[in-house]
Amino acid sequence: MPYVSLVGAAGYTGQEALDRVLGHPELELYAVGSDSLAGQDAAALDPRLNRNGGKRVPRLITNAAALACEADVTILCLPHEQAASAALPSRGVVIDLSGAHRLHDAAQYDEWYGFVHPSPGGLGEWSYGLPELSPPEGRLVANPGCYATAVLLALGPLADAIDRDSVVVDAMSGMTGAGRGLKASTHAGFVLENVSPYRVGAHQHVPEIAQALGFPVSFTPHLLPVRRGLLATCNVRSTGPDLRALLEEHYASSHVVRVLPEGVVPELSRVQHTDGAELGVFADRHTDRTIVICALDNLGKGAAGQAVQNLNLLFGFAETAGLRLEGVLV
Amino acid sequence: MPYVSLVGAAGYTGQEALDRVLGHPELELYAVGSDSLAGQDAAALDPRLNRNGGKRVPRLITNAAALACEADVTILCLPHEQAASAALPSRGVVIDLSGAHRLHDAAQYDEWYGFVHPSPGGLGEWSYGLPELSPPEGRLVANPGCYATAVLLALGPLADAIDRDSVVVDAMSGMTGAGRGLKASTHAGFVLENVSPYRVGAHQHVPEIAQALGFPVSFTPHLLPVRRGLLATCNVRSTGPDLRALLEEHYASSHVVRVLPEGVVPELSRVQHTDGAELGVFADRHTDRTIVICALDNLGKGAAGQAVQNLNLLFGFAETAGLRLEGVLV
Amino acid sequence: MPYVSLVGAAGYTGQEALDRVLGHPELELYAVGSDSLAGQDAAALDPRLNRNGGKRVPRLITNAAALACEADVTILCLPHEQAASAALPSRGVVIDLSGAHRLHDAAQYDEWYGFVHPSPGGLGEWSYGLPELSPPEGRLVANPGCYATAVLLALGPLADAIDRDSVVVDAMSGMTGAGRGLKASTHAGFVLENVSPYRVGAHQHVPEIAQALGFPVSFTPHLLPVRRGLLATCNVRSTGPDLRALLEEHYASSHVVRVLPEGVVPELSRVQHTDGAELGVFADRHTDRTIVICALDNLGKGAAGQAVQNLNLLFGFAETAGLRLEGVLV
Amino acid sequence: MPYVSLVGAAGYTGQEALDRVLGHPELELYAVGSDSLAGQDAAALDPRLNRNGGKRVPRLITNAAALACEADVTILCLPHEQAASAALPSRGVVIDLSGAHRLHDAAQYDEWYGFVHPSPGGLGEWSYGLPELSPPEGRLVANPGCYATAVLLALGPLADAIDRDSVVVDAMSGMTGAGRGLKASTHAGFVLENVSPYRVGAHQHVPEIAQALGFPVSFTPHLLPVRRGLLATCNVRSTGPDLRALLEEHYASSHVVRVLPEGVVPELSRVQHTDGAELGVFADRHTDRTIVICALDNLGKGAAGQAVQNLNLLFGFAETAGLRLEGVLV
Repeated sequence: MPYVSLVGAAGYTGQEALDRVLGHPELELYAVGSDSLAGQDAAALDPRLNRNGGKRVPRLITNAAALACEADVTILCLPHEQAASAALPSRGVVIDLSGAHRLHDAAQYDEWYGFVHPSPGGLGEWSYGLPELSPPEGRLVANPGCYATAVLLALGPLADAIDRDSVVVDAMSGMTGAGRGLKASTHAGFVLENVSPYRVGAHQHVPEIAQALGFPVSFTPHLLPVRRGLLATCNVRSTGPDLRALLEEHYASSHVVRVLPEGVVPELSRVQHTDGAELGVFADRHTDRTIVICALDNLGKGAAGQAVQNLNLLFGFAETAGLRLEGVLV
Repeated sequence: MPYVSLVGAAGYTGQEALDRVLGHPELELYAVGSDSLAGQDAAALDPRLNRNGGKRVPRLITNAAALACEADVTILCLPHEQAASAALPSRGVVIDLSGAHRLHDAAQYDEWYGFVHPSPGGLGEWSYGLPELSPPEGRLVANPGCYATAVLLALGPLADAIDRDSVVVDAMSGMTGAGRGLKASTHAGFVLENVSPYRVGAHQHVPEIAQALGFPVSFTPHLLPVRRGLLATCNVRSTGPDLRALLEEHYASSHVVRVLPEGVVPELSRVQHTDGAELGVFADRHTDRTIVICALDNLGKGAAGQAVQNLNLLFGFAETAGLRLEGVLV
Repeated sequence: MPYVSLVGAAGYTGQEALDRVLGHPELELYAVGSDSLAGQDAAALDPRLNRNGGKRVPRLITNAAALACEADVTILCLPHEQAASAALPSRGVVIDLSGAHRLHDAAQYDEWYGFVHPSPGGLGEWSYGLPELSPPEGRLVANPGCYATAVLLALGPLADAIDRDSVVVDAMSGMTGAGRGLKASTHAGFVLENVSPYRVGAHQHVPEIAQALGFPVSFTPHLLPVRRGLLATCNVRSTGPDLRALLEEHYASSHVVRVLPEGVVPELSRVQHTDGAELGVFADRHTDRTIVICALDNLGKGAAGQAVQNLNLLFGFAETAGLRLEGVLV
Repeated sequence: MPYVSLVGAAGYTGQEALDRVLGHPELELYAVGSDSLAGQDAAALDPRLNRNGGKRVPRLITNAAALACEADVTILCLPHEQAASAALPSRGVVIDLSGAHRLHDAAQYDEWYGFVHPSPGGLGEWSYGLPELSPPEGRLVANPGCYATAVLLALGPLADAIDRDSVVVDAMSGMTGAGRGLKASTHAGFVLENVSPYRVGAHQHVPEIAQALGFPVSFTPHLLPVRRGLLATCNVRSTGPDLRALLEEHYASSHVVRVLPEGVVPELSRVQHTDGAELGVFADRHTDRTIVICALDNLGKGAAGQAVQNLNLLFGFAETAGLRLEGVLV
C-alpha cells in the first residue's frame, strides 16, 4: 500500500484530501503537514487521526517535514506561490492541487498569478491530470483548477465542433472555493444576500482552460452565498454535429461524469459532497447557440476527489476507489 | 393629486408597489385589491394602511372592484394571464407590471407565455416604459420585466456598436423574482446551498429583450439563494467604439442608473432595497469581448420602482419622486 | 441478510433512509414505496437503484404494496397520520420514523398532533428506540423525533440531577426538518434572511420529551435558513453533581455521541451529513445554571441514521454499521 | 440645526448612523471620521456625501479630528476599548454606540470586556439611553447594545412580575452584529449552513442587562447565516399578573415598539432595515412559563436607529424623526 504524505492539511482542499485518503481502501496515511498546526495532536485537525489507540499520525508536522518524508505519494495543498517554490521529494508521486505547475509557459505566471515562477524549466515535467480528457502521466501531476475542470468537462469533447470565438462561460462557486483566507470579500456580512463577480476577465484559470482547449474563452466567475458547489454555464455556437451526442458518447462509460437526460438541469444539491460531475445540454433555438452546464463540488471533482481519481489511475487501482459518487438527493 | 388603485396587492410586486405609493409625495392611495385578502382589514397587508385613524383604505377589496374604481392610476400586479384578460378601466393611466402587454406580436404569447392572448388587437396601444431607453407614452404602459430591464440597461445604448450574434447573457435573481407561488423549486430545502438554472433558452423575457434591442440574445437565468436582487452578466463582442464611453455618456445625467468607475464590480448589496441600478464595464483582453454587468433590485428598478418612475414621467413629477435611490452600503 | 421494504421513500427522511440502506453492509433493499412516484423507474428517485444491470428494484411501487411485502424490515417514512393508520405487516421489524407510535397515551395525539389515533390500543406494543437512553425492544420500534433526540441526548443522563421546573430549551432546525410540504413558511423568499419561531409551546415533540424525561420542559423551536442540521440549547439549574461529568461518563463508550472538551462549541458543520451528535457543556457562573448544547443532523441522528442504529442493535450488527460518523470539517 | 460629527464611520454601525443622519430632517452632517479612510473623497464611503456640488463633507478625516470638531452632536461608532479612551469633546451631546460607557461599575470592564477602563470615575456621568425604559439624560449618552435592547424591551416592563431566577434568554443575530472584523468565525465558508453559539454565559451584554433589570439572566447568543436582524427568545416564569397585558400597556403609545396580536410570531423580515421592534407573547401551558420574543434589526433599533431616537428625545424633535419604521413585508 502506498504511503501518503499530505502537505498543507489545514486549508479547505487539504482537509478534503485528508478525508479522501482516510477513506481510501488502498492508500495509507503516513504524515500530515501544516505549518499553522505543527506540533499539535493530529486529532485537532480530524478526530479520525487519533482514534482507538490507532495513532498512526500522532502529531502534525511542518510542511517542510512532510515534504522531506519522501513518501510514495505527496499531496500538495499549498497556496500557489508556496507550492511553486516547495522542495519537492526526489521520489514518489507528487500531486499538486495548487496552480503552480499547471501552465507550461512560465511567463504566464507573471501575468495571471502575479509571481515569477521559481522553476520555469521544470514545468514541462508535469502532466495535467484531468482523467476524462488528459489522464495523468509520470510522477509529477498538476491537478486542475475547479473552474477549469468544470469548463473542460463541458467543452473539452466539443473543442473541434464549435466556433472557437463564440465561447462565453459564466461560472459560480461556493465560498470554500475562495479559500480560508480572511478578506473583506469572504466576510459573511458581505457574502450573505449577495452574489459577487470577481477577477472579471482576469481569473487565473483562464490560461489553464486555454492551454487545454487550444483557444481562449471569455470567462467570468462569481462567488455565491453557498458553502460548496460550482456551476459553469458554457455558451457556444456550433453549426456542426450534435453537441449532446458528442458529450454522451464521450462520457458513456464514465462513472464520474454524467450527461443528464434532455430537459434536466444540473444542480449543486446532487453533486455537493461528491466527487462526481453532471452535465446538462440545452439548445437555444433563437440564436443557434448551445448551452452546456456543468455542476460539481469545488472541493470534490474540483479538487481532492480529482486528485484521488488521478492517483487511482497512476497506481492502477479502480478509477473510483475511495471516491464518493452519490450524494443524497436533498 | 392622482388617486391610485392597486390591483393584486398581496404578491411581491404588489406589496412593493403599495410601499412606493404610500411613500410617494404626489400620489394618493384610493383602493387596494387582492382576491385572496378581500374583505380583510387593510392593516393585515400593511400596518400603514390603518394608522392613527387615517383609515383611508379601511378594507381590502376584490381585484375586480379595484379595477372598477376607474382611478386616475391603476397599477396591475397580477399574474400574466390574469392581467391579459383583466377588465381594464376606460380612463386614467394603467400600468401593468406583468408581461401581459409587453409584446407587440400576440403570437409570441403562445410560444413564451403558454397562453393565447385574449386581446391581441389591443397590444399596439401599450407603450413599453423603460425610462432610460423608451419613456412611457399614452395612458397604457407595460412595465418591463426585471431581467429585461437589467439586460436593456446594459445593452440598449450599445445595440448599434456590438456584433449582434455575439451576445450572451447569464443572469441570476433572488427568490422574490420567482413569485410567491409554492413550487418544489421555491421550497427553501431546495433553494438553500443551491443555484438553479431554469427555463434555459426559454424564459419569457427573451422576446421582450429581442423586441427592444432589435435582435435576439442568448439568455440563461439562474435562481440564487438570496431574497432579492438581480445580476445580469452580459458578454458582447465589438470592434467599434469604446463601449464604456457610450454607457457613461448615455447615463451621464441619470439619477437612477450609475456607471461604476473602472475596476468596480456591481454588487447586489448596494442596490437591494433601492430603485436604482448600477453598471460595471470590463474588457476581456484575450477575447476582444466586453463584459457589462448590471445589478438592480428585482422588486425595485426591476418592478415597482420602475413603475413609479414611469408614473413620475407621465404626470410630470420629478423623475425620482418617491423612489429610494440609496441603499445602506452593508 | 434481512430484506428491507421502504415505505414513503420520496420525502426527506425516506430518501435518507434509502441512502443508508443502500450503503449498509448487512441490509438488502427489497422494495421501495412512494405513492407519488409509483410506477416510475426507480432511478428517478436515486440513480443507484438502477445501475449496471443490478436493477434489484426496477420500479417504485405504492406504499400499500411496499407494506404488503411483509419484509424482514419495514421502514415507515410517512406523514404522522398516514403512519398511524397504515396496514402494518404482521411479521418482521417495523420502524416508524413518524411520530405516530411514539406516545403511549393516545389522548395526546388529539392535543399535539391534531388527529384521533386510530389504534390507541396498540401503542403499548411499540418501544421508543433511542439507543443511548432506551434501546429498541421487540419488533415495533418508534424512532424518536429530531428535536426530541437532541434534547434527550443532552438532558436524559441529567434527569435526576437537575431542577425539573428550571428547564428551558430553545432549538433551531434546518429547513429539511420542516418536510417537503409546500407552505408559505417553507418558501425560500420567506426563509432566506430570516429565522422563524413556530409552534411556540405547542410543538409535537414536547410530549415525547416529557414522556422520556418524566417531566415537561419549556420548548421553543425555530426554523433556520440552512438546509440541514439542528441545534438544541438546553438551559437547566442544578445544585447537585457535576453535569459535565455525568454526560462524559454516560457517553464515554459511545461511537455516536461525543461530549466536546471544555470551551468547545457544538457546530452544525461538524455533524451535517453524519449520523453522530455532539454535546457542549457550559457553566453560567452568574445564574447557577448550566447550558448543554446538542448539535446533530436532523436527517441523520435525528431520523434515518438513528433508525439504522436501532436496526443494528435489534439484529445484533455492529452498532455503527452503515452509519456515517465523520463529517468533513469545513 | 445641530451639527453632527460622526466618529468611526467605516464600520457597520458607523455606516448606518451616517445613513440616518443624512436622512434626518433636523440634523446637519458636519464631519465624518474614519482612520482607515481618512483623506479619501467622502463619496468613497457613501455617494450621497459628494453629490450635485453639495460637498458639505468633501473629505473624510481622522477620528481624532472628528472628535476635535466639538460638534453639537458627536456620534461614537468605535470599538469598545477605543471609545473608552477617546478624547471626548468638552461640549455638545456625545452618544456612544459602543459598550464603553454603559456599565456603571468599572470593575466589570475587566471581567466582561477584557480591558481596564481608563476613565472609571467618569462612568457615572453617562445615562443609559433606552427610550422606552430609561430615556437619555444629560449630554453623555450610552446607547444600549443590540442584544440588551431586545432583552430589555421584552423583559423591562415585566421585571417586577416574574420569578427573577427563572429567566433564560436565547438570542440570535445576523452577521453584521459581529462587526466587520475578519475572523475565522466571520468567514462565509464557516457561517453558511451553520448556526454558532458563542461566548456562552460570557457575552458582554450580560452585565448591561443585569444592571438595567436589577438581576442577572442566563443568556446564550448565537450567530445566524443572515446579514442583519436579531431575535431574542425570552423565557420566564410568573405566577402573577398577565404578562401580555403589562407589555401591551407599556407600549400602547409607542410608535417604535409593537406588541403583536396573540398567535403572531415576530419575524426578522418585518423589522429588517427598520428602526422598530416587535414583541410576541406566548403562554406555555404545560410549564407555567411565558415566552416573550423580540425581533429587531441589530443595526436599526439595536444601534443607529436607537441612537437617533435618543437624539430626537434630547433635542425635543419628534421621537421618530428620521427613523425608518416600516419595512416592506417580504
